[in-house]
Amino acid sequence: MSWQSPFQALVTNKFFEAFIIAIIIASALMIGVKTYRLPDWGYQSIVILDWVITIIFMIEITMRFLGTNPHRSFFKSGWNIFDVLIVTISLVPIDNADMALIARLVRVFRVLRMVSIIPELRMLLNSLILALPRLGYVTALMFIIFYIYAAVGSLIFAEINPVLWGDIAVAMLTLFRVMTFEDWTDVMYETMEVYPFSWIFYITFIFLTAFAFLNMVIGIVVNVLEEEHQRELEADPEHISIKQLHQEIQALKALIQQQDRSGK
Amino acid sequence: MSWQSPFQALVTNKFFEAFIIAIIIASALMIGVKTYRLPDWGYQSIVILDWVITIIFMIEITMRFLGTNPHRSFFKSGWNIFDVLIVTISLVPIDNADMALIARLVRVFRVLRMVSIIPELRMLLNSLILALPRLGYVTALMFIIFYIYAAVGSLIFAEINPVLWGDIAVAMLTLFRVMTFEDWTDVMYETMEVYPFSWIFYITFIFLTAFAFLNMVIGIVVNVLEEEHQRELEADPEHISIKQLHQEIQALKALIQQQDRSGK
Amino acid sequence: MSWQSPFQALVTNKFFEAFIIAIIIASALMIGVKTYRLPDWGYQSIVILDWVITIIFMIEITMRFLGTNPHRSFFKSGWNIFDVLIVTISLVPIDNADMALIARLVRVFRVLRMVSIIPELRMLLNSLILALPRLGYVTALMFIIFYIYAAVGSLIFAEINPVLWGDIAVAMLTLFRVMTFEDWTDVMYETMEVYPFSWIFYITFIFLTAFAFLNMVIGIVVNVLEEEHQRELEADPEHISIKQLHQEIQALKALIQQQDRSGK
Amino acid sequence: MSWQSPFQALVTNKFFEAFIIAIIIASALMIGVKTYRLPDWGYQSIVILDWVITIIFMIEITMRFLGTNPHRSFFKSGWNIFDVLIVTISLVPIDNADMALIARLVRVFRVLRMVSIIPELRMLLNSLILALPRLGYVTALMFIIFYIYAAVGSLIFAEINPVLWGDIAVAMLTLFRVMTFEDWTDVMYETMEVYPFSWIFYITFIFLTAFAFLNMVIGIVVNVLEEEHQRELEADPEHISIKQLHQEIQALKALIQQQDRSGK
Repeated sequence: MSWQSPFQALVTNKFFEAFIIAIIIASALMIGVKTYRLPDWGYQSIVILDWVITIIFMIEITMRFLGTNPHRSFFKSGWNIFDVLIVTISLVPIDNADMALIARLVRVFRVLRMVSIIPELRMLLNSLILALPRLGYVTALMFIIFYIYAAVGSLIFAEINPVLWGDIAVAMLTLFRVMTFEDWTDVMYETMEVYPFSWIFYITFIFLTAFAFLNMVIGIVVNVLEEEHQRELEADPEHISIKQLHQEIQALKALIQQQDRSGK
Repeated sequence: MSWQSPFQALVTNKFFEAFIIAIIIASALMIGVKTYRLPDWGYQSIVILDWVITIIFMIEITMRFLGTNPHRSFFKSGWNIFDVLIVTISLVPIDNADMALIARLVRVFRVLRMVSIIPELRMLLNSLILALPRLGYVTALMFIIFYIYAAVGSLIFAEINPVLWGDIAVAMLTLFRVMTFEDWTDVMYETMEVYPFSWIFYITFIFLTAFAFLNMVIGIVVNVLEEEHQRELEADPEHISIKQLHQEIQALKALIQQQDRSGK
Repeated sequence: MSWQSPFQALVTNKFFEAFIIAIIIASALMIGVKTYRLPDWGYQSIVILDWVITIIFMIEITMRFLGTNPHRSFFKSGWNIFDVLIVTISLVPIDNADMALIARLVRVFRVLRMVSIIPELRMLLNSLILALPRLGYVTALMFIIFYIYAAVGSLIFAEINPVLWGDIAVAMLTLFRVMTFEDWTDVMYETMEVYPFSWIFYITFIFLTAFAFLNMVIGIVVNVLEEEHQRELEADPEHISIKQLHQEIQALKALIQQQDRSGK
Repeated sequence: MSWQSPFQALVTNKFFEAFIIAIIIASALMIGVKTYRLPDWGYQSIVILDWVITIIFMIEITMRFLGTNPHRSFFKSGWNIFDVLIVTISLVPIDNADMALIARLVRVFRVLRMVSIIPELRMLLNSLILALPRLGYVTALMFIIFYIYAAVGSLIFAEINPVLWGDIAVAMLTLFRVMTFEDWTDVMYETMEVYPFSWIFYITFIFLTAFAFLNMVIGIVVNVLEEEHQRELEADPEHISIKQLHQEIQALKALIQQQDRSGK
């Protein structure tokens, strides 16, 4: 039994884990409380609490690092690097106002430690990230649709309303707004006053993106159902396929035929 | 046959059930009618009708209580407790104006007795409630996303519009509004005047929540389909699995081989 | 061959059907054209065309009636009754302005004859109507949710905005608006000024209806997939179930065992 | 080895393909850059770059044409015709301002060459187009619903708001807006002032279109799942159906029976 074992035992201990989750929740609540107007003693107690939480996090991560064997493998997990970064930056003393905003933002991201601590959430986020490439080509196609419509839109409508169609970037933002149906008729009626047939532009865009999105969703559903089916098959070690039955019947036939020959 | 049987027989009687449903509908209609401006005799007849309905409900619940054997098991059903509470509170005499509102609210919830009386609705609501934990971790993840974005939003945008971003609670409400696409561009354009790149905040938020929601829905669909499939398999007592066929063919093979040996 | 056959042959003739569809399209276009400002000769030619179309429809329906054997069975189809009604009302001479509106509305519904003529559309609409009862209890539950929220809403918010919450009917319309996310925050912010916690009312309502709706959709998907699966199985007359295989293997076993006995 | 082979080898070369994709991306970026306010040298370098890109495209398409055997088959692909058209129109010299807009629009559509070059995107778009007829009858039914509601709407509401209900075309646009829930209550409240029961018009329309849309989506999901299932079965050349197992068992039975007879 190595000297790392006590650390490993502690870190994987149920009560220790619950304690760390409680500290993360406390840190999250503190972030929430800070957005309200507080009395002076409130600010001061938050500053003290913040230091306590940072130190607890530092001790916890150090222990998790010491409990990993070999130590290098600790940094192979993206979540561990994230934890170290978040805690290290929390330790940097803040001198001026600009840095204060960054320091507060870092503290906000400490809530994400919840995901790095609870395995189920970590698995869920991993599966979400793994699902992204599956969307690769449809996203590319959707981006091309957006780009072409934004180019056409900023070409034709730029002089009608430069705020919405001035350049290709704001035109893409405007089209995203149209896709979410957010006051899209206001955008349309404005251009229809100059080009009465510009509704064709909007209606075709809505149909194209809605239809592409629908196909994307259906594609994912089909994919997920198939993967689930495949995983189930593989999860059952005693699974018998119809093909195996076929081979067994063939073996039986051979046996009977052989018996027939030998019997004669 | 015990003395409880007549009550049980009456309570499970089709006509009695239909009568109680009719009374609940009458009670629901009364609630609707009360929201309109009524003449004096209208108010008075509603007060009388309300007492009649309360008394009928009281008698019905008493009979259902007496018909249950043993009596204690009556209070094991949450719906029975709900029924007793709703009727008991209706009996409390109202003295002042503040209590009047509560009394009227209690009468509104009497419409929920419809769910407690009709078994199909009760099953439906139960299945809806049972489906909730299935959403557990995704809801937790979504809440974390909301919390982080609300914290960042109230940190950066609080001075631009305190009504929308003043503290973390209103910021979460604002983000819920953004998620429903309700005038979200107004919220965005306002912050874009100060921080031109704040559209990144909104677009990433929309993508994250929409994507997480989509995964949640797909996960539920897959789950439900599998449960349905499992239930079907179990519902068929004569169901033969492929594995059983495999065993039967193996038994056949053994029989032929044995016959072969004995034949020689 | 009866005297009805020539009518039947004509009515089911491909070219005749195409001609009737063309007439229905012409009638639909006329309805569209009438919504534009027309010169005098335009109005007059539409009146004439309308009579021509009505007469063609009358002849067509008469022939279809004569081609049906026995005649009574003609009125067993809801679509036939619909056709007769629409054409008969078109024949009524219009005297005053009030009737003119009804006469024009009847002509609008002649477009629905498209559905009664094209079998695929008729089947589609039938399947849509057949799918409705499947939604029965969920719709009932949703209505109860709406009714309770509308009652509570009109009880508490009626004095804040009588236009939106004055009585239970307008409150239900307002809640439907909230469910479609249409300017729902305007409705909420208004009541939040008086009751700061009224967001709970809206958020719970949105979650309840969205969740119930989601379950409804998933239920339908599962149902449709199962029905499709069942229909497929039944459509294949040579379908062999695993249970049949089991019985065949059992028969084989019995045969071998019998052979074994007789062999000894 | 024919004289066409070197062209074919070059065109299908990985690096050449990557180079052409890079050129298309450069052409897309140029379109984006042109929507911003540029200094004079910027405009001039874009004009030069545009000529370079057009010439590269021309050379590439010529080589692809020469590499195709026989040459006629080159024009059998719609994408090739699209490529030739886009490049040819880019070559036309622009004399006046009106033509300049068309010339710029043609350059925008050069982004679509991305789809014609990358096989995965081409397949995706093809599959999207192939999915369209599947929607045929539901789209027809939806159009009929739209047409009837638009006719009724322009008949009754035309005098209330001619901008929204003036003729059947704008009425259909207004109904599309109602279907996307975009400020639909404003449209409704306006007509409810004259016809208090006109909410029936909107609510039934929303239910009809939402329900038809839902059925459409479910129909597509079921279709796609079945096609996927069918494709999987056909993709496995060694697939054994249950029916084949049945035939094998029957053959086994015949063998045993024959053996039985010969043994006696």
